[in-house]
Amino acid sequence: MLDSIRSPEDVRSLSSEQLTALVGEIRGTILRTVSQTGGHLASNLGTVELTLALHRVFKTPEDTLLFDVGHQSYTHKLLTGRADRFSALRTFGGLSGFTCRGESPYDTVSSGHSGSALSIALGMAEADRAAGRDRWTVCVVGDGALTNGMVYEALNNCIRSHDLRLLIVLNDNEMSISKNVGGFSAYLTRVRTSPRYFAFKRRLENGLVRIPLVGGGLARFARSVKEWLKKLLGQATVFEQLGIPYVGTVDGGDLPRLEEVLGGAKKRGGLCLVHVLTHKGAGYLDAEAHPDVYHSVSPFDPSSGVPQKPASGFSAAFGRTMCALAEKDGRIAAVTAAMPDGTGLTEFAKRFPDRFYDVGIAEEHAVAFAAGLSLSGQRPVCALYSTFAQRVYDQMFHDVALQKIPFVLALDRAGLVPGDGRTHQGLYDVSLFSSVPGITIVSPETEAELCCALAEAIGKDGATVVRYPKGAPRAGDRSGFTDLGAVQYTGPEGADIAVVTYGRLTENAVQAASLLPDVSVRVVKLLTVCPLDTETIRAALGGAKQVLFVEEGVRAGGVGEKLAALLSGTVKITIRAVGGLFVPPGTVAELEEMLGFTPRQIADEARRLVGKEDAT
Amino acid sequence: MLDSIRSPEDVRSLSSEQLTALVGEIRGTILRTVSQTGGHLASNLGTVELTLALHRVFKTPEDTLLFDVGHQSYTHKLLTGRADRFSALRTFGGLSGFTCRGESPYDTVSSGHSGSALSIALGMAEADRAAGRDRWTVCVVGDGALTNGMVYEALNNCIRSHDLRLLIVLNDNEMSISKNVGGFSAYLTRVRTSPRYFAFKRRLENGLVRIPLVGGGLARFARSVKEWLKKLLGQATVFEQLGIPYVGTVDGGDLPRLEEVLGGAKKRGGLCLVHVLTHKGAGYLDAEAHPDVYHSVSPFDPSSGVPQKPASGFSAAFGRTMCALAEKDGRIAAVTAAMPDGTGLTEFAKRFPDRFYDVGIAEEHAVAFAAGLSLSGQRPVCALYSTFAQRVYDQMFHDVALQKIPFVLALDRAGLVPGDGRTHQGLYDVSLFSSVPGITIVSPETEAELCCALAEAIGKDGATVVRYPKGAPRAGDRSGFTDLGAVQYTGPEGADIAVVTYGRLTENAVQAASLLPDVSVRVVKLLTVCPLDTETIRAALGGAKQVLFVEEGVRAGGVGEKLAALLSGTVKITIRAVGGLFVPPGTVAELEEMLGFTPRQIADEARRLVGKEDAT
Repeated sequence: MLDSIRSPEDVRSLSSEQLTALVGEIRGTILRTVSQTGGHLASNLGTVELTLALHRVFKTPEDTLLFDVGHQSYTHKLLTGRADRFSALRTFGGLSGFTCRGESPYDTVSSGHSGSALSIALGMAEADRAAGRDRWTVCVVGDGALTNGMVYEALNNCIRSHDLRLLIVLNDNEMSISKNVGGFSAYLTRVRTSPRYFAFKRRLENGLVRIPLVGGGLARFARSVKEWLKKLLGQATVFEQLGIPYVGTVDGGDLPRLEEVLGGAKKRGGLCLVHVLTHKGAGYLDAEAHPDVYHSVSPFDPSSGVPQKPASGFSAAFGRTMCALAEKDGRIAAVTAAMPDGTGLTEFAKRFPDRFYDVGIAEEHAVAFAAGLSLSGQRPVCALYSTFAQRVYDQMFHDVALQKIPFVLALDRAGLVPGDGRTHQGLYDVSLFSSVPGITIVSPETEAELCCALAEAIGKDGATVVRYPKGAPRAGDRSGFTDLGAVQYTGPEGADIAVVTYGRLTENAVQAASLLPDVSVRVVKLLTVCPLDTETIRAALGGAKQVLFVEEGVRAGGVGEKLAALLSGTVKITIRAVGGLFVPPGTVAELEEMLGFTPRQIADEARRLVGKEDAT
Repeated sequence: MLDSIRSPEDVRSLSSEQLTALVGEIRGTILRTVSQTGGHLASNLGTVELTLALHRVFKTPEDTLLFDVGHQSYTHKLLTGRADRFSALRTFGGLSGFTCRGESPYDTVSSGHSGSALSIALGMAEADRAAGRDRWTVCVVGDGALTNGMVYEALNNCIRSHDLRLLIVLNDNEMSISKNVGGFSAYLTRVRTSPRYFAFKRRLENGLVRIPLVGGGLARFARSVKEWLKKLLGQATVFEQLGIPYVGTVDGGDLPRLEEVLGGAKKRGGLCLVHVLTHKGAGYLDAEAHPDVYHSVSPFDPSSGVPQKPASGFSAAFGRTMCALAEKDGRIAAVTAAMPDGTGLTEFAKRFPDRFYDVGIAEEHAVAFAAGLSLSGQRPVCALYSTFAQRVYDQMFHDVALQKIPFVLALDRAGLVPGDGRTHQGLYDVSLFSSVPGITIVSPETEAELCCALAEAIGKDGATVVRYPKGAPRAGDRSGFTDLGAVQYTGPEGADIAVVTYGRLTENAVQAASLLPDVSVRVVKLLTVCPLDTETIRAALGGAKQVLFVEEGVRAGGVGEKLAALLSGTVKITIRAVGGLFVPPGTVAELEEMLGFTPRQIADEARRLVGKEDAT
């Protein structure tokens, strides 16, 4: 079946038997592929019917379809001419795990971060109205995103848009990345389980769908009945109170019913929110039973399922250290934004529930809330992924640094991130946060350094960012290095060249030096990357004749540029960093090769710089 | 009266006659002072009674009081030992126009940006509960802030906090900075004007306040009556639907009633939101009639009022250019976040209402929404203040640059900003946005350059930031300069020193050169500050022996560091920029002096660098 689907046009003519077969085939393909490539499983298994219904009811790509975050777009990819490349999901040169404009005209936006799709969809629909285009904009938003303030900002701005052809699909799987949090989540649960009003309302909506065929008078009558019932039963949804017409709830596993409701909303025209209840992991028992485990997974064996393994590497070390420190200091609290497992805080949450806060996909609130904890005497550690911390510059500036309070921002997945691609690289945090007045940024290379840095940061009076990559450290320690505090080095005085770096790439620099037996190389590693201590760094350079700075981060505003400015006029610095591009999916090794970070590439550059190109 | 108020303790014992006199005196003082210093007038005149009531009902500073944004804290300042310094409001070395921790133990947080206080308050209250402290946290939030997603993130996280001693005061003046927008605003209007339920509810709340004195059984009965009424009348507020107990509405001009309701909420204990209707500009007729004009004002004559003057300087030039361009190109749209007047877009909004969008204090949404407009073929210009753009890094990265779409971010008030101080300086945008892949940042010095830059940016396929300071340009043109495109220069080849800068400080650099008749100085001005064209800049330097880079922006990640890296090993660069501090209130001239940006200071530094210190 799937082989015959070249575009959504092909699914519009299928019989219900064919559709049932296709649904099964899509589920099997997703399960098989993700078990090999890793990726988001449960959410994709749960949205097969919804995606099919959307492509059947709406004329994509003329009608435009947006997925918030985009991690649930696998069925969409399979239906839009990418089935033959689907096995290359999340690989170097392959398909993105999110929607991606470069891949297909059916991917309206490139996505990856939560909460922004509805704002974009609203803008698209407004521009379409202004231009007199009558196409539809359809935006699928998960219930997890309803913890995010940006979605609310968009919902709040829908009110002037009633005549827009904008359909909002609330994909409510009752289980986002981790346990959903907050008043809105509790509210949705009440809506889901409220038997009286919504049963009335559903029957009424069904009636309304058919009314345009019957005539205007009856439609008006039905609407006034509806209004009367609504008043009587007292259950206008929050969406309706904000001025957004609401239809729901609809079973997300019932394809004919989905098409009926979506078709009804389309026929009625204008802004509407359809509340769909999907089942995360649908069709794969193991995933249905453990949707949190299957949200985002590494490759696994589908017959035995994903082993529920604890966090590893730096994340695990962070979690362990947090527990050990919190054991001794009752002031330590942990805050995270929907990533308790990913950041390694599962154990902390269990052992110290009164000092653990998961605020949902609300990074801005997470930081300001943690600032509040600090203002009342706690020692908060706010743990985010580096890429999502791109949302909290102003909060670190205004709600933390300006208050001059103890604060630790722990950034997991700093540096190159495998698989997830352009929207999940942790390459920008150093550049971003280094302009916050008074901030310290530490980039440990080893687990021991992470533990020390964390303990020290928690004890400090100001704000500290501690950042570390996904996965395990490359080196256990650096015993061959000489320690100047925040700076370590190895190699001779007066070297031909000093290779300066920080974090994970230190190992690459050390290996590069070993590939250059005929060049005298000093390797210098920074532990604290902001502020830079010029005199200590100068001492560590040991009079090297020039510097090659290698940075697993963006060049603009990075550490290399800062060092070049500090040492201007004293030694020449060449910077090898990430510049001006979005880094695609791939393994860390593939991305390092692409960016020139392998030991061989660093060695070649060093050799070129010292004028020994021909020696190799 | 006011002279005798040394601390809030002094207002707790006043009679109602004395309070009435005090209210009048405070209003007079605020009006007199703001007419001289400039500042926020209408919102402060409207919150005199509310602030008095809060300080009388709660035992500040043990109980802690937060003001979102903090612009409405003038009465609070007058009551907390700062009346004698109040005339120095918003001046260099004087009082901040917002709350400021350094000023007083009564200022819980330093503030200035909207939407974050409730998150901080929630964190403080949680930490207090954990530590067993029974003090109250009281957070005043304006209705304008309810357009901001961060407030929603905090409200959404209140649900686990019912036993917190957290009082949220919704200061609803029915008129925030500009006309309030969105579904929530319309909703609040319905709440305000809904006669039946809320009248019942108010009487009921009064009853409930007294119930603890009567006994448990009656309280339960009253509560069940309330639930029954609520169901019958079908008007649970959105706050209640999100799980936040709600009391309202209360007349913000009625001090006894305010104290009664606030006291009741305190006595009841636990989380509560009190909805207060204040009157922006209360007590000053001119301000009441024109609260938008009086929101934030420059010094004025209180007898004749503030002349309703249009935007001037760069803001006006921006607005004029936008209108002229939009006249010719129907695709051009303007988006702003609650600053239609401040950004000079008033005329545009009038002439092109279908292409003008004010989304409220929702910067993140503003950018993503404008990205949506662009994706549907419009040419959006999103106009924000530089300081508020600190919230949109991720949106510029993820929703704009990643999509590779035409987009213009116009940043007003870039550079030093007079009066507003630490939280409103536009010193960070260049550092921030320069790490967004593919972005162009232009920093015009003259109005003509602004017009050209804007037209060019709108015509481009990628993302451009156009940034310009508050006020008028210092130079009409630079006819003495030689033009290399994005770089201009004047002065001899092979100069002793090149002073390189951009934007407003070009005039200072030119004047500095004129103060150095005995030094050969080249002045180089960058128009495009990102990306930097190394060869063009090298040509403009004309073989100068060294470079002094002067930057009206933060050093970390600024243009100076980038240039130092690009020219490393060829010429020595010394950077004079803003480093590691929050820049306090003051005039631009005072702040330039403080930061070493005056022509004399630049000249002295240049002289020192070329080794001619003694010649002066």
